[in-house]
Amino acid sequence: MSTANQITTKWLGNMAFESTNPSGLNLIIDADPDSGGEGKGLRPKALMLSALAGCSGLDIASLIKKMKLVVDDFSIETIANLTDEHPKYYDAVTIEYHFWGADLDEKKLQRAVDLSVEKYCGVMEMFRKFARLDIKTIFHKN
Amino acid sequence: MSTANQITTKWLGNMAFESTNPSGLNLIIDADPDSGGEGKGLRPKALMLSALAGCSGLDIASLIKKMKLVVDDFSIETIANLTDEHPKYYDAVTIEYHFWGADLDEKKLQRAVDLSVEKYCGVMEMFRKFARLDIKTIFHKN
Repeated sequence: MSTANQITTKWLGNMAFESTNPSGLNLIIDADPDSGGEGKGLRPKALMLSALAGCSGLDIASLIKKMKLVVDDFSIETIANLTDEHPKYYDAVTIEYHFWGADLDEKKLQRAVDLSVEKYCGVMEMFRKFARLDIKTIFHKN
Repeated sequence: MSTANQITTKWLGNMAFESTNPSGLNLIIDADPDSGGEGKGLRPKALMLSALAGCSGLDIASLIKKMKLVVDDFSIETIANLTDEHPKYYDAVTIEYHFWGADLDEKKLQRAVDLSVEKYCGVMEMFRKFARLDIKTIFHKN
């Protein structure tokens, strides 16, 4: 059985909106002052990149726990190319998974990344349909 | 010249992440308690729907201003179908544009919706590549 996800995004006046989330926490969206907004909220298009990194990050955080891996720090960089002409969309995205630690289990961490990228991350699957993806894993010994 | 958008999403431990945004405001992502998180942040996949409604909403808010239209309230419902199997993604999305007002200029508001859907909204363009879209405009006289 498939699941319905419903989000309500309400206009607050001028260029501001409040959007719901299944967590029960709302978020505020706004345009920058040079686009007529007041810069008091998140820019919406870049939320796509946070959705991508967050979805994949949760997969990996869960696998780090399950596999009992020791990681000091973990960060994801999403670097997207925005097209020139309207409608402007992301046609290419580089996703860099950075891990820091003195004694990282690189093989298992790579396996966790691969499982998210290839099997679990639904947002990655959506991105694959409109963007060329370049996936990198970078290990930092500190 | 195309533009690079870079977002950093940093692990905060357990299932929490902090993600940057071009606005300078950060957002917190977390899993629900039944998925091992603490429910203290936004669920990432649904951020895709906020990005969609926010992107299109900003187009329309901007056109409401330019066309000097009078609207009491404006809200966007995004209702997505999530697939069953991993990777779970949105394969169909209904987008409802609701406008409230005593004397709405329905023709111009419909034109504003059409301009966003067909021409300006980059997030809509990305969604079109992975989901069947159903667009509705609903006018409420209050």
